[in-house]
Amino acid sequence: MATGVSKRAGQIAPSMTLKIDAKAKEMKQNGLDVIGFGAGEPDFDTPASICDAAREALLKGMTRYTPVSGTLHLREAICKKLSRDNGLDYKPGEIIVSNGAKHSLSILFQCILNDGDEVIIPTPCWVSYPEMVRMAGGVPVYAASGEADNFVPTAASIQSAVTARTKAFMLTSPSNPCGSVWTRDQLAFLLELAEKNDFYIVSDEIYENFLYDGLKHQSIASLTPGAKHRTLLVNGVSKSYAMTGWRIGYVAGPADVIKAMDNYQSQSASNANSIAQYAAAEALLGCQDSVEGMRDAFEKRRNTMVQMILEIPGLSCQKPDGAFYVMLNIKGILGRYYGGKKIDTSMAFADALLENKHVAVVPGIAFEAEGYCRLSYAISERTIQEGLTRIAAFVSAMTQKAE
Amino acid sequence: MATGVSKRAGQIAPSMTLKIDAKAKEMKQNGLDVIGFGAGEPDFDTPASICDAAREALLKGMTRYTPVSGTLHLREAICKKLSRDNGLDYKPGEIIVSNGAKHSLSILFQCILNDGDEVIIPTPCWVSYPEMVRMAGGVPVYAASGEADNFVPTAASIQSAVTARTKAFMLTSPSNPCGSVWTRDQLAFLLELAEKNDFYIVSDEIYENFLYDGLKHQSIASLTPGAKHRTLLVNGVSKSYAMTGWRIGYVAGPADVIKAMDNYQSQSASNANSIAQYAAAEALLGCQDSVEGMRDAFEKRRNTMVQMILEIPGLSCQKPDGAFYVMLNIKGILGRYYGGKKIDTSMAFADALLENKHVAVVPGIAFEAEGYCRLSYAISERTIQEGLTRIAAFVSAMTQKAE
Repeated sequence: MATGVSKRAGQIAPSMTLKIDAKAKEMKQNGLDVIGFGAGEPDFDTPASICDAAREALLKGMTRYTPVSGTLHLREAICKKLSRDNGLDYKPGEIIVSNGAKHSLSILFQCILNDGDEVIIPTPCWVSYPEMVRMAGGVPVYAASGEADNFVPTAASIQSAVTARTKAFMLTSPSNPCGSVWTRDQLAFLLELAEKNDFYIVSDEIYENFLYDGLKHQSIASLTPGAKHRTLLVNGVSKSYAMTGWRIGYVAGPADVIKAMDNYQSQSASNANSIAQYAAAEALLGCQDSVEGMRDAFEKRRNTMVQMILEIPGLSCQKPDGAFYVMLNIKGILGRYYGGKKIDTSMAFADALLENKHVAVVPGIAFEAEGYCRLSYAISERTIQEGLTRIAAFVSAMTQKAE
Repeated sequence: MATGVSKRAGQIAPSMTLKIDAKAKEMKQNGLDVIGFGAGEPDFDTPASICDAAREALLKGMTRYTPVSGTLHLREAICKKLSRDNGLDYKPGEIIVSNGAKHSLSILFQCILNDGDEVIIPTPCWVSYPEMVRMAGGVPVYAASGEADNFVPTAASIQSAVTARTKAFMLTSPSNPCGSVWTRDQLAFLLELAEKNDFYIVSDEIYENFLYDGLKHQSIASLTPGAKHRTLLVNGVSKSYAMTGWRIGYVAGPADVIKAMDNYQSQSASNANSIAQYAAAEALLGCQDSVEGMRDAFEKRRNTMVQMILEIPGLSCQKPDGAFYVMLNIKGILGRYYGGKKIDTSMAFADALLENKHVAVVPGIAFEAEGYCRLSYAISERTIQEGLTRIAAFVSAMTQKAE
């Protein structure tokens, strides 16, 4: 038969967030003064104590295969973290470590979805969720949410997405791209629905440490004594400890799913990097001051960003409760022109902004959120100010008609 | 619908090699003096210069996301290596780095196989090949090889496996578990067949540096000017540089397949560990003396192992040309009894040997090779001697009848 790529591969959309980030980085490398609002990673360095642990791992010769699901040391550290931070009681056999939380989610979907099984995904959503569900033969079913509801889908919106084929609900609180945080009541409603209809809750808690205005994260797995039996809790060290490059994510969940994931991973990837595993244990067990430091910085930057956006005529946004993203509402200026070109989509806006003002934002279409762009504030105050000044200039130069 | 794991996950056999290795490690941790012939990794430490590069990466703050397909620095290093060692001309856009060669292969099969596509796999084979093909919806078709042919399938055996659905041939030279090395003529025959029938050759060259008796590795991609256009060359730093825990593997191949893999990886895992990428570039570009040192050690150990096996009545083996495994032929003693228990399969042999003599070997059944066990000589001479002394004692205590 003929060579060539598979249908599966041909159907996968490339990650738009990574693509825009790559384009901005390329422009930077070419000497252009690019402001990147696209980043999905903290701009902080990995804390020194964690890097020290990596050096210690090298000295100890921890350069060999580890158990596929991660060293016992790291899985015990994860159990301690889940107990300390989330009031959850897990055993190492209920934990599997993978090459980043994205890898965790991907293997998880492969291990719970049969062809045609549905996963409810609130929109706007992180770009990889629907792709990963499809890659596992599943069907993404969207539960739309609006700015008026703080980007948390209403009970009615969720309920109408449930069918006899619902296998899981994809919960992300705080969320990417909206920074929305679910209330305890909203979580309780979802849990009850999941119990009544017997589906899993996949809870991506990667942004759990970045909540603002005094809000505290609550894992849905800790809501009732039974909740953890239907929750697949996904987390990692990338965001909380500025360790995006290290690639350590994990899933905590029912032993049968974790065992299946262990099998799947044993035949498709083996263990995550052994040195990073040791460093991740230090991140989880060591002093947590750096996390609080980052959180404080993000809160200040969020306030700056939101304030500056609200001062730009035609643009608006909600003040997000968590993560490090703002959804910039551009509906007020869509249809206007810039340099004779009609800007009628989030993609056109992002393209023209990058080309003319060297400011990178992610178009909302990437998140099933046309009419918005995602701006990350995981960059310095000064950069945020400069970037928004350029956006203000860009918008004020727009015209109602092609001139 | 009901919760529970997917059919896909339920069908995956756990990696037996990792399982036996884990069991032996557990017995060791419990204080037992276990000889582990199961290991699939060098017993050497990662060379100091490579660990130094990892420290340098930490100092340079290389702890962020890299491009999904790997840093340009590492992909350029891979291109230089392929040119220097294999006489091959690749560009960085024809390379993708993943979380170990197993991860590379897994993503590769996802990106070239449609449901029902066939991949010809010579047996005995590495345990993960058929599982990965099945995980991608493909069908493994075995081309059996025998000890008499040095565990390289004959032309007739390969030819009879080709059908209209053949999408790829899985080539592994030197091979795991047999240590077999294909001759240039055998490679040329395969290449011609692939061209005639238009299928890919997936060439796993992870053991390329471990050939003995003066033999030199030849990549099938370098055989003719056109060969690289249908070869997907898989390699990594795990075996050559004693970096199994670091998880850096790569594929070099036609740009359309690499692009598809980049997309797939962008939505399912992102980049491999950033620090390990930097260390891997040093491994590939730095002084190669450590590789030669390991090769020499492995050759001596192979000779010791083969000699000792041939001295045990009832056991035999071929002297393998590469890798660090010997296929121990146990057909002569199958059917005998140990401690009243009939030993009639490779699994029963491995079980009884581990239980009674604390010697771990991998049963051939794991490799579609009943009647054999795989012994790794990636352990010290002294350990090899002690282990084979125990095996000799085990075999000599076997009886023809249940007593």
